[in-house]
Amino acid sequence: MRDVYVLGVGMVKCGRFTEKIEFRAAEACMEALKDAGIEWRDVQAAYAAHVMQGPSAGQKVFSKIGVTGLTVTNVENACASGSTALHHAYYDIASGKFDIVLVVGFEKMQKGIIDASKGNRSFEDKMGLHIMPAEYAMKAQRHMHEYGITPEQMAKVSVKNHKNGVYNPYAHYQKNFTVEEVLNSRMICDPITLLQACPTSDGAAAAILVSENIAKKHQNMDMIKFIGTAVKTESLLEEEDLTTRTAKAAYEMAGIGPEDINVAEVHDAFTIGELLHYEALGFCKPGESGKLIDEGVTEITGRLPVSPSGGLLSRGHPLGMTGVAQICELVWQLRGDAGARQVQNNPKIGLAHTQGAGGICAVNIVAK
Amino acid sequence: MRDVYVLGVGMVKCGRFTEKIEFRAAEACMEALKDAGIEWRDVQAAYAAHVMQGPSAGQKVFSKIGVTGLTVTNVENACASGSTALHHAYYDIASGKFDIVLVVGFEKMQKGIIDASKGNRSFEDKMGLHIMPAEYAMKAQRHMHEYGITPEQMAKVSVKNHKNGVYNPYAHYQKNFTVEEVLNSRMICDPITLLQACPTSDGAAAAILVSENIAKKHQNMDMIKFIGTAVKTESLLEEEDLTTRTAKAAYEMAGIGPEDINVAEVHDAFTIGELLHYEALGFCKPGESGKLIDEGVTEITGRLPVSPSGGLLSRGHPLGMTGVAQICELVWQLRGDAGARQVQNNPKIGLAHTQGAGGICAVNIVAK
Repeated sequence: MRDVYVLGVGMVKCGRFTEKIEFRAAEACMEALKDAGIEWRDVQAAYAAHVMQGPSAGQKVFSKIGVTGLTVTNVENACASGSTALHHAYYDIASGKFDIVLVVGFEKMQKGIIDASKGNRSFEDKMGLHIMPAEYAMKAQRHMHEYGITPEQMAKVSVKNHKNGVYNPYAHYQKNFTVEEVLNSRMICDPITLLQACPTSDGAAAAILVSENIAKKHQNMDMIKFIGTAVKTESLLEEEDLTTRTAKAAYEMAGIGPEDINVAEVHDAFTIGELLHYEALGFCKPGESGKLIDEGVTEITGRLPVSPSGGLLSRGHPLGMTGVAQICELVWQLRGDAGARQVQNNPKIGLAHTQGAGGICAVNIVAK
Repeated sequence: MRDVYVLGVGMVKCGRFTEKIEFRAAEACMEALKDAGIEWRDVQAAYAAHVMQGPSAGQKVFSKIGVTGLTVTNVENACASGSTALHHAYYDIASGKFDIVLVVGFEKMQKGIIDASKGNRSFEDKMGLHIMPAEYAMKAQRHMHEYGITPEQMAKVSVKNHKNGVYNPYAHYQKNFTVEEVLNSRMICDPITLLQACPTSDGAAAAILVSENIAKKHQNMDMIKFIGTAVKTESLLEEEDLTTRTAKAAYEMAGIGPEDINVAEVHDAFTIGELLHYEALGFCKPGESGKLIDEGVTEITGRLPVSPSGGLLSRGHPLGMTGVAQICELVWQLRGDAGARQVQNNPKIGLAHTQGAGGICAVNIVAK
């Protein structure tokens, strides 16, 4: 397998779009092409990650840029769609199949709760496990019971990520909140309050993965290498185990451990999620995630900054976009290009993590 | 790149399902596993090809069989979804990433016309080009004008494929029609009549692709090798050129030409489609497809049997299923296991072709 590099990234500001999503997604692609310094006609294959944009949505995006006969594949893996598309793009380059692959993740969200149980009432569905706030609320209750994690600790995740979002021009929300405001916002599903749940956002992000020869030809700055990737599916009831095992596979591939991660974008669809994932990703021992947030370890100024982009909570969570937007942020952080939200530990290795309905976990790791 | 083999295939009879699609899709997977002689736990990655079964539909299918932590990816590429999933499975094996990959294609169709222009009114949409019967009717009118192809020649495609379907236990329709019945059926979009359009069918099919070492370990009979694959996207206005170029790429990869194909499953969503694709795939010269059908060349008893399964017209066209069902049929034909619809030319090489809305073409080639 060959080395793979992220040559360029681009995204558009998250929000509620009035335009058709194809145009914004095409814009993200153009930004990534510009950043990479390559032409659209040089792209040999493209992935379009989205969850509910309808048949051939990717082809519609790329037809806005121009038709070139390239191989286009629409990939859907719920909230891990963008990460899964990157996983496949990685192997397209690593295997020698292609030298230049573009991944675009995008979503224009519908109104209302996403019920992933639609069309299938399994045991897990009947338990309410596929209604996301319910699923995470149950996990939070269990964690509070087992390890004594507090509502304040959960709220601090929202405070941190919203603070980061203030300095991210691509974030949907740029507003600071206090722990009290977070805890006093409307109760969604005990203990999850409104400001502990990701907002409904539209967005688009793109990344261009290339082989070493292309990277060397086009890039003078530090090259960002894609060093680990894993996508796994498991029963929802075993989800924490799933995250641990997916991260393990990605760490092994990268030849590193969790202690080597300098910056991470973690799936914080709900505040408890970020805390649970600290533990599952090996950033701390089981039950110690509350301590990690209390000590400021995952702040921009900390030892292991998590979701400097503002995460799903503040940047937003346009489903198909998220995994790709995470890679954009990691690339900017590793390059030192993240402006006022630049992490302070001179990061060398970044980890992106998403979790998708249906028992999906994806972990991608990049390094400079 | 390593050699890739199709170790097992399985499908369920097409029709209108009352059960949830996950159960029928899981059944197709079990059939393919049985045919391959391997266990579900040995499958390292799986693709779920579907167009409109909702988020994480593949994960729902596989959760019916059991959860094993494997890599699952939902692939959507309109009517070429199944073919595209096979394309990616091929490269997963060829690249050495995995040794055993399962592809399942399935669809439970909604009622009503599929308007691929939903959410995006491009120039092509405004021209009505994404309403499938309209698109193919225009192509038919043009071909009649340019080459003098006749309504009777088009109708003969329906007669042939329905005749083949009579002998396919997996076909949705098992009924013979005459040229007159086809021409006198209700007009949908001139010159396309009802019996010249594929029916609305639900279905599921699965195939298991493996590396050579796995194939040799598990199979005593003739091994079916996957020798060529290409997926391309192009403007709809250039679609015929797209098919030609996609086929060319697949032929080159396989090291063969159209003259080497002994049996083919061709995208006959509408009768004119099959004729146009004869030409684009190189089975005859431009304008000579009518002659090919007149001379019986593409009958089961002919030199180059096309759609012995009954094709989309008679077996049915559950969108995500089609590309996978085509491979099932080719495997059965190459093994000599196709019963009363067995082609008579002792086939060595088979080609599967699908065309998807949004300007997608996929060609997969297998050989024994």
